This record gives sequence, structure tokens and C-alpha cells, in this order.
Amino acid sequence: MEETFVPFRGIKNDLQGRFMCYKQDWIGGLNAGFRILAPTTYIFFASAIPVISFGEQLERDTDGVLTAVQTLASTALCGLIHSILGGQPLLILGVAEPTVIMYTFMFNFAKSRPDLGSSLFLAWSAWVCLWTAVFLFLLAILGACSIINRFTRIAGELFGLLIAMLFMQEAIRGLINEFNVPERANPASAEFQPSWRFGNGMFALVLSFGLLLTALRSRKARSWRYGSGWLRSFIADYGVPLMVLLWTAVSYIPAGSVPKGIPRRLSSPNPWSPGAYENWTVIKDMLDVPIMYIIGAFIPATMIAVLYYFDHSVASQLAQQKEFNLRKPPSFHYDLLLLGFMVILCGLIGIPPSNGVIPQSPMHTKSLATLKHQILRNQLVTTARSCITKKSSMGQLYESIKEAYQQMQTPLVHQESSRGLKELKESTIQLTSSMESMNAAIDESVFDVEKEIEDILPIEVKEQRVSNLLQSLMVGGCIAAMPFLKTIPTSVLCGYFAFMAIENLPGNQFWERILLIFTAPSKRYKVLEESHTTYIETVPFTRIAAFTIFQTVYLIVCFGITWIPIAGVLFPLMIMLLVPVRQYILPKFFKTAHLQDLDAAEYEEVPATPFNQATEGDLGKTASFPNDGEILDGLITRSRGEIRCVCSPKTRSSTPPTRELANFQRSSSLPDRVYSPRIRELRGNQSSYITHSIARIAWKGCKILVPFLQSCFSKDGDSGMG
Amino acid sequence: MEETFVPFRGIKNDLQGRFMCYKQDWIGGLNAGFRILAPTTYIFFASAIPVISFGEQLERDTDGVLTAVQTLASTALCGLIHSILGGQPLLILGVAEPTVIMYTFMFNFAKSRPDLGSSLFLAWSAWVCLWTAVFLFLLAILGACSIINRFTRIAGELFGLLIAMLFMQEAIRGLINEFNVPERANPASAEFQPSWRFGNGMFALVLSFGLLLTALRSRKARSWRYGSGWLRSFIADYGVPLMVLLWTAVSYIPAGSVPKGIPRRLSSPNPWSPGAYENWTVIKDMLDVPIMYIIGAFIPATMIAVLYYFDHSVASQLAQQKEFNLRKPPSFHYDLLLLGFMVILCGLIGIPPSNGVIPQSPMHTKSLATLKHQILRNQLVTTARSCITKKSSMGQLYESIKEAYQQMQTPLVHQESSRGLKELKESTIQLTSSMESMNAAIDESVFDVEKEIEDILPIEVKEQRVSNLLQSLMVGGCIAAMPFLKTIPTSVLCGYFAFMAIENLPGNQFWERILLIFTAPSKRYKVLEESHTTYIETVPFTRIAAFTIFQTVYLIVCFGITWIPIAGVLFPLMIMLLVPVRQYILPKFFKTAHLQDLDAAEYEEVPATPFNQATEGDLGKTASFPNDGEILDGLITRSRGEIRCVCSPKTRSSTPPTRELANFQRSSSLPDRVYSPRIRELRGNQSSYITHSIARIAWKGCKILVPFLQSCFSKDGDSGMG
Repeated sequence: MEETFVPFRGIKNDLQGRFMCYKQDWIGGLNAGFRILAPTTYIFFASAIPVISFGEQLERDTDGVLTAVQTLASTALCGLIHSILGGQPLLILGVAEPTVIMYTFMFNFAKSRPDLGSSLFLAWSAWVCLWTAVFLFLLAILGACSIINRFTRIAGELFGLLIAMLFMQEAIRGLINEFNVPERANPASAEFQPSWRFGNGMFALVLSFGLLLTALRSRKARSWRYGSGWLRSFIADYGVPLMVLLWTAVSYIPAGSVPKGIPRRLSSPNPWSPGAYENWTVIKDMLDVPIMYIIGAFIPATMIAVLYYFDHSVASQLAQQKEFNLRKPPSFHYDLLLLGFMVILCGLIGIPPSNGVIPQSPMHTKSLATLKHQILRNQLVTTARSCITKKSSMGQLYESIKEAYQQMQTPLVHQESSRGLKELKESTIQLTSSMESMNAAIDESVFDVEKEIEDILPIEVKEQRVSNLLQSLMVGGCIAAMPFLKTIPTSVLCGYFAFMAIENLPGNQFWERILLIFTAPSKRYKVLEESHTTYIETVPFTRIAAFTIFQTVYLIVCFGITWIPIAGVLFPLMIMLLVPVRQYILPKFFKTAHLQDLDAAEYEEVPATPFNQATEGDLGKTASFPNDGEILDGLITRSRGEIRCVCSPKTRSSTPPTRELANFQRSSSLPDRVYSPRIRELRGNQSSYITHSIARIAWKGCKILVPFLQSCFSKDGDSGMG
Repeated sequence: MEETFVPFRGIKNDLQGRFMCYKQDWIGGLNAGFRILAPTTYIFFASAIPVISFGEQLERDTDGVLTAVQTLASTALCGLIHSILGGQPLLILGVAEPTVIMYTFMFNFAKSRPDLGSSLFLAWSAWVCLWTAVFLFLLAILGACSIINRFTRIAGELFGLLIAMLFMQEAIRGLINEFNVPERANPASAEFQPSWRFGNGMFALVLSFGLLLTALRSRKARSWRYGSGWLRSFIADYGVPLMVLLWTAVSYIPAGSVPKGIPRRLSSPNPWSPGAYENWTVIKDMLDVPIMYIIGAFIPATMIAVLYYFDHSVASQLAQQKEFNLRKPPSFHYDLLLLGFMVILCGLIGIPPSNGVIPQSPMHTKSLATLKHQILRNQLVTTARSCITKKSSMGQLYESIKEAYQQMQTPLVHQESSRGLKELKESTIQLTSSMESMNAAIDESVFDVEKEIEDILPIEVKEQRVSNLLQSLMVGGCIAAMPFLKTIPTSVLCGYFAFMAIENLPGNQFWERILLIFTAPSKRYKVLEESHTTYIETVPFTRIAAFTIFQTVYLIVCFGITWIPIAGVLFPLMIMLLVPVRQYILPKFFKTAHLQDLDAAEYEEVPATPFNQATEGDLGKTASFPNDGEILDGLITRSRGEIRCVCSPKTRSSTPPTRELANFQRSSSLPDRVYSPRIRELRGNQSSYITHSIARIAWKGCKILVPFLQSCFSKDGDSGMG
């Protein structure tokens, strides 16, 4: 995206781009059929559950002026609007922790002012929303999003980790509360007696850790060794909701022997209970707000605007990362404009506004990538099988696979997805040659269709609007389903918060660098054995450490600020401040080449080494080694940003090993391998690194060798014996 | 061991064999220095904690006639005697679950008889012990142990799993009790009110699962990625005791806010409390037992004799498995004789007798293997380093390493440890040739001493008597330390029981076959990728399943019998019954070749395929790839019985890859690879199996290649640049 500040151009480009594929957004989604439910439910839970507990948090902090009903309503409403009118349908909207913090600050301020008071709090915050919207409009129109690329990885990942910390803080605070008498509760009632509080707290520990551990495991179900394939993928798709159900059920086991209210469950007014509506009519109080406060409202408004501008754009950015190979254009400016309107709407009906949320948005894209992968694979496999039954040659096979592949692409693909196709072609041709070179007949026993197809599939994302629309509707449904939601123990929610915090750490390079610092030197080579990012080989460890420590300190400062009573409202500024810091201060302390690898920024032009380009290009291929998508999961989860995959591109071809070996020797003598500053430090690792390449050669090699030998021996007519 | 039934010959042989190395048993142990404490504490906890909770169980079941004091006393006393006078010092003695079950049966019987009653129970059981001893003497003298080999894997592993089930049952029962009012407790007291019982139960869940999970993790510490090497091995060595301390400390956190007695802790009389001694004087009551009961005592005695004969021998057998490469002779007959004397002793002072225990005995050997490995490695590394500083050639290096290695061996080694030495020689020579072939200078940067030494070390066990003696003394110390032991929460013990049950499952082929049955067909190849046993490739899956299901049913029957009130005393017979079943019935249903692989028995002569022999011989080498011994851990834990390791012996040589590749192609065309009945089913796997071999070639290959390239480029004087 070029940096253009001509008014409205950004918005115009976005509208044009998205308009082209708007129809397809819907058709594509509907074509996916019931399968779309997996990502939908996954995201629904990921966005509903936090919103509900943020609602609870707000209820505590605003003396019940705002509750889960309002947060859910806002999330559903904005999600609905965005999924239909929005630009980037991968973006998930919701009431986020920062908003809650902001609203808490505002409420405390309003309450402290006699001429405002908590009665006029909503009216005043409506004014804040109006101001916020104005700033957002300006930002959108003036093309502020085109500088979104200046929010480099350092800002995005720091923010991501900050969110994770806030989630974890929420979980821990919640667990501690389980041992205490909640505010605004009658301490005389049975379940708040010391003995029962103790039991309740311990039960909460069991439930929350139970949920956390089982949920984390269930996400890995695809790579489980036990259970049939469909069961494993079912658990992997729906595991988290299932676990919430499971542990809610568990929480009812001791029901007979314990007083009502143990364990504690979600408390929120039903939408139809009296008083739940008074905030809808806030608009009529707006003029009662003293003029000075109406004007003063622009101070928190700027903060919120900055926050939303950043949060919304970064969430959108993280949902459209390079390695997802998205086919459809982004829409930063238009989405920001739309957000402005939604903020006004929310303000006028007295509910906290929603914005693009981390980590849900990237989670959404990931789940859609898995979906698309499954669909593509099944389609191509059936095609290939039919060809094989027709005893057609590899050439024909390739033709028909390509055909089927093209049929499944969106109209836009033809100009944009050259990548996917090229790859498909290359690998199928390699395949062809290899099979022919051994002139083996194509039959299932020799030609493992499933695996070959997996091999040639690039990562793609099912880009559509249906999943977003459905999840918004389901969130809306939650308002009606409140009685059922109230059966969920609060401790299970704590566990879920911890789950969301942890689930999103892998792939965050900032986090992985922190881990790298704590990794024992003797174990560092293990990092190299996995797929890893470039900097690990190109940047000296001490520099990585320095960079990470700086980032950590910065993170802690940001986190600390959120604890300051009123000034806490300023924490978004800290994030903004990172842009100049990164652009002007960091280069003074770090080599540009190192910065480029640690935190790529477009305004720094550093020619990447040929080797890196090779591995960059190899990205799709890493994905293309999955075994029922588990490695795909691995890739998608582990990699946010470019990937250094463990095999060099050459090693994937299927020509006989001996020749490969020559290649390997050549490639391993590339200067940047041998001159790498860490080569001595990591020699053992380097070798084990190369090992993998060889392993891959062998893997392919054997694919040919074994059937070949089989066919040889079977000529002697013995292969039946065993 | 040939099957000889000439009276006393077995005992004579044992005494001769062990006498030769008796002195060395002590010297060797003392030489190990403070390091010996790691295995000692590990085993001390593994044997003391169960004994304590068996004591509690007995106290419940015998109305307090027998308590933890007695069980500890018996364990300490017998352990002491055995470690000094016993034959096989690797064998750990203790009061085992079967003994507890037996004594419970006997107590219930005695109580049910008016003319015996619980007052004469100990006197009567003294008679039972006398009878038991008589049978044991007969068995020992007549050389019954020489048929110990007829207890094939099927019996040993079934018994092992039965013990694991009993442990797990104990854990679960214990946890359930935490929710109820314990017997013989005052239900009026505060901590037994419903509310506190609930809290106590939940707290118990937290503590027990906390201990289980952390203990399981701590055992894997060597392979952790974080923390310095010494810390990791410290945690791996002492992790379990540390965790018991940790969770005991945790159990005191809520001390302020909860009534005394939450969580529940070990309850046992102090040895100096009145009445704890009356049983020492049981001998004077022995003649009060009615004559018919004295005679009738031989019925339970036969059962106990059978049980001890089996349990003692199998425990000893499992502690001396093939893959530990023990250097010193076994001593089955003499140990059984000695056991007889100890049973009499225990009977006369009215404490339950001890016998060789599973799983502690194999645990003991494992921990000593790790110890020996560390000692050897450190010694050789220092030697190698000194040579390198002396800039001596590889030849000299090999010489000095060999010398150091021999110095560290026991006198017996020279005739017996040809294996270890041969291997050392081979691999060092390979090494030499490889290094010379690249005529690279020996310096640390090129020649990774640590790794190379690891490569050439075979598995060996520090066979000595000190660890056994010390742990017995420590167990004895527990009697004095009872006040401290009483601070351990019972729920932590439950967790520890579960830990012991789980810790010993891996390596039990029976268990691994059960897992294999539940493994999804698409994932079975993963089993082949790890080191795995022969049968997986040679026996068709259906046969493995059939064999395993039979074994499982048999196990469930055995387990069921232990639940029958009085007849339960017969369960050892079920195990004995397995011998004829295995020998005469199973061969009717399974091919001899398959049985040989599933459950090798000496009385079935089946020529192993050359390939198997190759891999058999390769055993030491599998061990020889560890990285701070973590793979060694892996091997020792995973493999009970012969191992099919993933690399073929050839692949470890360091000659340039191309030639290896030829080897690999040749070897991969071996008939038994290609004709293997599962080859089609597992083709993909087969290839990934071969992959590993190649990986290993490459690993070695690169070791040469990388430094070579480095040296080449460094000639251009660029290698300094980064």
C-alpha cells in the first residue's frame, strides 16, 4: 500500500477493491456449506465469552450502569453491520479490554464530578463517542491508514502481548475473587461463609485449570495418535466449546451437596428485566451535559480515537498476514470510516462501542485457512482418484487436477493466484517426472494420492462474509440465551481467558525471542531444527537479547500505565510512540540489517540475501507437508511473519538422492551459510539443520525407491508372502 | 541360566558368583561419592512413600493392629539385611500391596474366628510366616528359580500392569475418601462438616493433580529447553522429592483460614507412643494359637510363598534386564533363601514381611544407569580434553580414552565387558578415520568432545550396595522422622501413587500394545519412527491385537479376583497359571515366530532374522546419541526388553554420505525389509523410517563437511566477517 494522503483516495481504492469481490464473498461462503460452522462456532466462542466477562467487569466497575447485555448488544450490532457493509470481512469486531478500561476511567471521572455524576455518565460518553467519530473520520479521509506499515512488528506484537497480559490478569484476578465475598453481595448468605468460600475457591481452581489444560490439548487434536481422523478433526474444530460445556457440566456434579451459588456463575440481568433498557434512551439526556464537559469530552475522545485507529488497523493487519496468501484486497481506510459511524451509533444508544479485536481476528483467519485447506484437498483427491481409476497417465492427472483447482478459485484468482498455480504445476511435474523415471504404474499403493495432494497445496484462506455474519448473529442470540449463559461458572471463564492468552503466544516473535533468551545455550540448536525466522541465524544472539529486553521493558511500562487511576487513559499513546522510537531511535543502536530481520520496516531498504528469498518463496511448501493438516496447524500457529522453513527449496524435488546430495553440498556451501556469524556457535545445529534437508530428500527418495524395489521383487512373484 | 534342579546347586552358584564381586560392590559405591545420593533419594522416596501409605491402609483394615511404623520397620530391616547379605544389591525390598492384601484377608479371617480373634492375629500370622519360609526354603534349595525364565514377558508385564492398577486404584480411592468422613474419626469436629469436607476434597484434587503433573514433568527435566544444564539434571534427579516438599508447602498456604485437619495429613502413631510396641513381643503368644490353626496356616502360607517366589524373582529379573548390560551375576536362588529367613524374622516380631518390589527395583537400576553414564562421560571428557590441549593425534586420543575407560571398570569387566570396549573401539576408530580423512586439526571447535564421548558410551549400570544400604537406613530414619512425615497431606500421597503407576507404564510392551490398538491406522507409522520393538514390523496387526486382547482380559480377571473378599488370596495362582497357558495353550493360537517376537521364551527356538540381530547389536548405540543423557533417559524408560532402534548400524559410520547412500540402498533392499508383511500398509512409514537412517548419515556427514568448508573458506581469510 503506497503512502498517499490525498483525501478520500484511500477510501475510494478500498471501496473499488472490495466491491469487485463482494458478490463472491457471499457465494463463496455459502458454497462451503455446513463446514463453515467450524470456524464460526470457534470464533463465536472466542468473541462472545470475553465480551460477556468484560460485561461483568464493566458491571462491577460502573455500579451496574453497563452490563453484559450492553457489551453483547454492541458486539452483535457492530459485527452485523461490519460483516455486511464492512470492507475486510476477516476482521472481527467486539468490545475489547481497552474499551472497558477507557469506560471505567470515564465512569470514575464522571462519578467524581457532582455536576455530571453517574446519572449523566452515559450521556457524556455519547459526546465522547461523537468526538471520537470525528477524529476517526478525519483519520480515514486523510488516509492515515496508509502509514499503517509504520506500525511494524514491534508495535503489533507488543500490543498483542499487552492484550495477552490483560487477559491473563483478568483470569488471575477472577480466580482470586472466587475466594472472597464479591462486591454488592450479601455476605450473610450461606455460600459466603468462610468454609464454603474456601470450597468455592478450590473448586474454581479445579474448573479453571481443567478447562485451560483440556482446551489447550483439544486444539492439538489433529496430531493426536489415538481416535479416528474425523473424531480428531471434530475435536480440533469444536474442542474449546465442547470443553466449556464439559466443565460447565462438571460444575453441576456436586450440586446436591453444596448450597446454591457454588460454584459462582455468570450474573447478568436478563435483557427483559426492568431497567436493562434505560440506557437505550440516553440520547434525550445528551443536552443536559454541561457545555464544558461536551467540549472537554474531546480529551478522552482523542485517546479512544488513537486506540481504535491503532487497534482496528492492527487487528485487520494481523488478520491479513503475508503467509495467509490472501487473494482479496485489504480495506483499512473504509473500515475505519465505517467504524466511525458505528461508534456514533453505539454512543447514541448508550452502549460501549466495538472495534476490531486481537486475538480474535487472526484466529478467525487461521480457522478459515484450515477450512479452505480441507475443502481443496477433498476436491482434488476425488479428482485424482477418478483419474487413477481411469488409469490415465500422470500428465492427464496433472491436467485434471489443475482444472479442478482452477474451478475452485475465485474470479480474481486468475490474475492474482499465479503463486499457488505455479507451485501446483512445479510440484506435480516433479512428481510426474519422478514417477515416470521409475516407470511405475499409477495405482493407490504406489501413488499416495492424499499425501501428494497435501504436498502440492499452498495455504489459502476461505475469504467470505458468512462466518462473520453468523457469529455476529450468534452473539446477538446470546442476549436472548442469557439464562443459559448464566449456567457457565465464572471460574470456567477465567480458564478460558488464560486459554486465549496462551493460545495466541506461539507465532508472536516477541514472545519467541523472550523464550530464546531463557533457552539454555546447549539447547538453542533445537530452535534451528524447527521452522524458524531468519533473524535467529543472521542476528548475533547478544543483539537479539538487547532488542528483546528493550521491548520487554517497554511492554512492562505500557502494562504499568494501565494501572494508573486516571492517567491510564494515556496508554494508547505509548503504543503510538513506538512508531517514532522504531523509526528514529532504534536505528541508532542496531544495525539496519539486524533491525530488518528483527522487525522488517518498508522504509528501510536492505537487500535480503538470496538464501532468504529462497526460503521466503518456500513458504507455501512448508505448509505443504501436513498430515491431516496438523503441520498446517503448526505452521499457521507458529508463524506470524515470515518463516525460515527447515528444508531448502531444492530438497523437495524427487530426483534420485545422489543428485540431490550434490545439490545439498552446493547449497550448504553458500556463503551466507558458512559466513553466518553464528556458524561456529551453532555448528552442531547447522549440521542438524542440514540433516532435516537430507531427511526430506530421503523421504522423497524412498517414496520412489520402496515401490520400485517392491515392483522389482514382485516380478519374482514373492511379494504376496508375509 | 540353565535349568538345574540339583539341590543347593543354584544357591552355590549364586554365592560363588556374588562373592567374587562383593568387595567391589562396596568400593564402587563409595567411589561414586556424593553423586550416589541422587539415585538413593529417588529410590528412598519411591519405596518409603508407598510403604507409609500401605501402613495407613493396613491401619484402617486391621483396626490399628498394624500401622506405618510396622511397615516402615519391616522395609528398613529387610532392606538393611538384603543390602549387606543379599545377592543382587539392585533389588529393592519393601512391604508391597500384595502383602497388604494378604494380611487384610488374614486379619478378616482371624477376626471372624472367635477362638482366634484379632488379639491372636499377629501370633497366627507368625505361624503363617513360618510356613511361608519353609516353602521358600524348599523352592530355593530345589532350584525353582532356574525356571524363572518360564515367566516370560507376558507374565512379568501383566504383573507389572496389575501393580500399576492397584496403585492407581489406591490413588482414586484415596481421593474419594477426602470427600467423606474417615472411619474412626469424630464426625462432629469442625473439619468434617459438609462445607469443610467439600473444600477439603477440592483442595485434595488440586494438591494431588498438582503433584502428579509437576512430578511427571520434572522427570523429563533433562530435555527441557530452559534453565542451565546442572539445574535441569538436578531437577530430573531430585524433582519428585522436591515436588512432594513443594506441594506439602502449598498445603500450608490456607492454614490460617481453615480449621486444623484441612488438608488431611498422614496419621500414624509415633513409634514412642504407648502401644506401638506390643507387637514386637508377639512370639510369646504364638503357642496360644490353637493347633488346627497352626496347621491350617499353611494354606495362606502357600499363597504368600507363591506370591513372594514370583514377585521377588520377577522384581529381581526386571532389575537385571538385558539392555542394562549388567556386569555382575544374578542371584535368584540365594536371594529367595535369604527372603525365607527375613520372613521368619518379620513374623516373629509381628511385622508384615517385605519382598522384592515392582516398580521400585527396575526404577533403582534405571537411576543407577543414568548415574554411571554421567560418571563415565565426565571422566572421559576430561581425558579427551587434556589430550586435545596436548594437541595429540586421534590415535593417541583413542588410546588414552580407552585407558581411562578401562581404569573405571570393575575387575570383572576385562573378561565380561568386551561388548562395551569393542564398541568404544569401533566408534572411536570410525571417528578417527573420519577426522583424518578430512585431515582437520583436532580442536574443540571441530571435534565436539562432549558429543563424541556421548556417542561412544554404552549403557552401563553402577552396580553397588551403597545406594540400597543408604535408602534402607533412610527408610529406618522415617520411623524417627514420623512427626515430619505427618506433615505430608494424604492427597499428595494419592498424587504420588498415580505418579508411580504412570511413570512405569512406558517400556511395558503390554501397555504399548494396548496403545497401539487404539492408535489410528493413519498414525501407526509414528510408532515406527520412534525406537520400537521387532514385533511391530514382523507380526501382523490383527495378531498383535488378538494377543493383546487376550492378555487384557486375563489382566482384568486377575484384578477382579483381588476384589473377592476371601478367595482374593488366590490371585497369585492366576499369575502362576500363565506359565502353562503361555507354554501349551498360546502356541495353539499363534505362530511360534509371532509368539517369539511378542513374548520371547527360551524354550521356543526360532532363528532371529539377520536384520534383527543387527539391530539387537545396535542397542548400545541407540543409547549413544543422548544429549545430556535425555535420550538415554528415553531409551531406559521406553525400552524394557529388546529394542528395534530407528537407525541401522551402518548409518553411524562417518564415511562421506555418498558411500553411505549406497549402503543404505543395499540395506533397504534386504528381503526382510521388502517382504515384511506390513510393508504395503506401512510404506509411507517405512520410508520415514529410512529417513531417520539418512538423517543420521547426514548428521555425521555434516560434522565433517561443515568444518571442512569452514577451513576452506577461512583460507580466504573471510571467516571473521559476520
